[in-house]
Amino acid sequence: MSQVSFGLDTTGATRLEAYLHAHIPLVRSMQVRVDHWDADGLRLSAPLAANLNHEGTAFGGSLESLAVLAGWGLLWLLLEPQPGTHIVVAESHARFLRPVTGTLEAFCPLPDAAVRQTFLETLQRHGKARLDLQSRIVLHDQVCVTFAGRFAAHRAEPHAP
Amino acid sequence: MSQVSFGLDTTGATRLEAYLHAHIPLVRSMQVRVDHWDADGLRLSAPLAANLNHEGTAFGGSLESLAVLAGWGLLWLLLEPQPGTHIVVAESHARFLRPVTGTLEAFCPLPDAAVRQTFLETLQRHGKARLDLQSRIVLHDQVCVTFAGRFAAHRAEPHAP
Repeated sequence: MSQVSFGLDTTGATRLEAYLHAHIPLVRSMQVRVDHWDADGLRLSAPLAANLNHEGTAFGGSLESLAVLAGWGLLWLLLEPQPGTHIVVAESHARFLRPVTGTLEAFCPLPDAAVRQTFLETLQRHGKARLDLQSRIVLHDQVCVTFAGRFAAHRAEPHAP
Repeated sequence: MSQVSFGLDTTGATRLEAYLHAHIPLVRSMQVRVDHWDADGLRLSAPLAANLNHEGTAFGGSLESLAVLAGWGLLWLLLEPQPGTHIVVAESHARFLRPVTGTLEAFCPLPDAAVRQTFLETLQRHGKARLDLQSRIVLHDQVCVTFAGRFAAHRAEPHAP
């Protein structure tokens, strides 16, 4: 599947990583990396050593944070051409299925084109819109954490009535 | 309500804070404090400066982490007299109602005595048990985040059949 056909600017990964590190101290502590962004979705990672828990596996808070960041970051990349749009997480649901014993790797798949279009049109028309995104933490092809996030975007400036 | 009547060792707050800081690097980055532990429940806090997001309010990942830690910490305190018991978060559900613009304060109420007793008896009998805990993040008496966590405890050593 061609990246170009999606109209995505895949160079955004570098900008997203710089933005996250500049604005969110915990992202620096977690040593989050933006690994890949294309028509499949967004991949983030973080080293285990910076994100350990008392059992020597990944801390639940780090896993939730990385999953939130995968969804939030995907929306940031979709909305990057529209400066002045705020994105926040409104709701989250995580299931911790297996301990993560290596590098934390989060993947948030890109929603279908129709879902993205509805979201962008709603934001355009009403100045705000919500999008449900699912991310997951995977280790050695096994899903360790599933995460469903509801994200809300709104424009900073008042929209026309 | 007397603390003594609950049989809780309220000096555990100091030990819990030391344990978290010793074992979870992100707890140090977040500068988590264990503020209070008594018959009402467990209170944790973290300064906003260490937990900012791109909007200058509290980062969603920090809020989730603090809420997880409030539930996990409460269980740790309940089970402190039983060394060798592992506690992990199995599932979580958070609703972000309002931005947190000051110190992050999480509170996890102590479950009813009957709920605690059932949990401890199940753990005793089967070597494992689950407990649902609700925490919340409050700022100026307004609930900003609600959090429901399902925690699983199991004994390290095999239990008798």
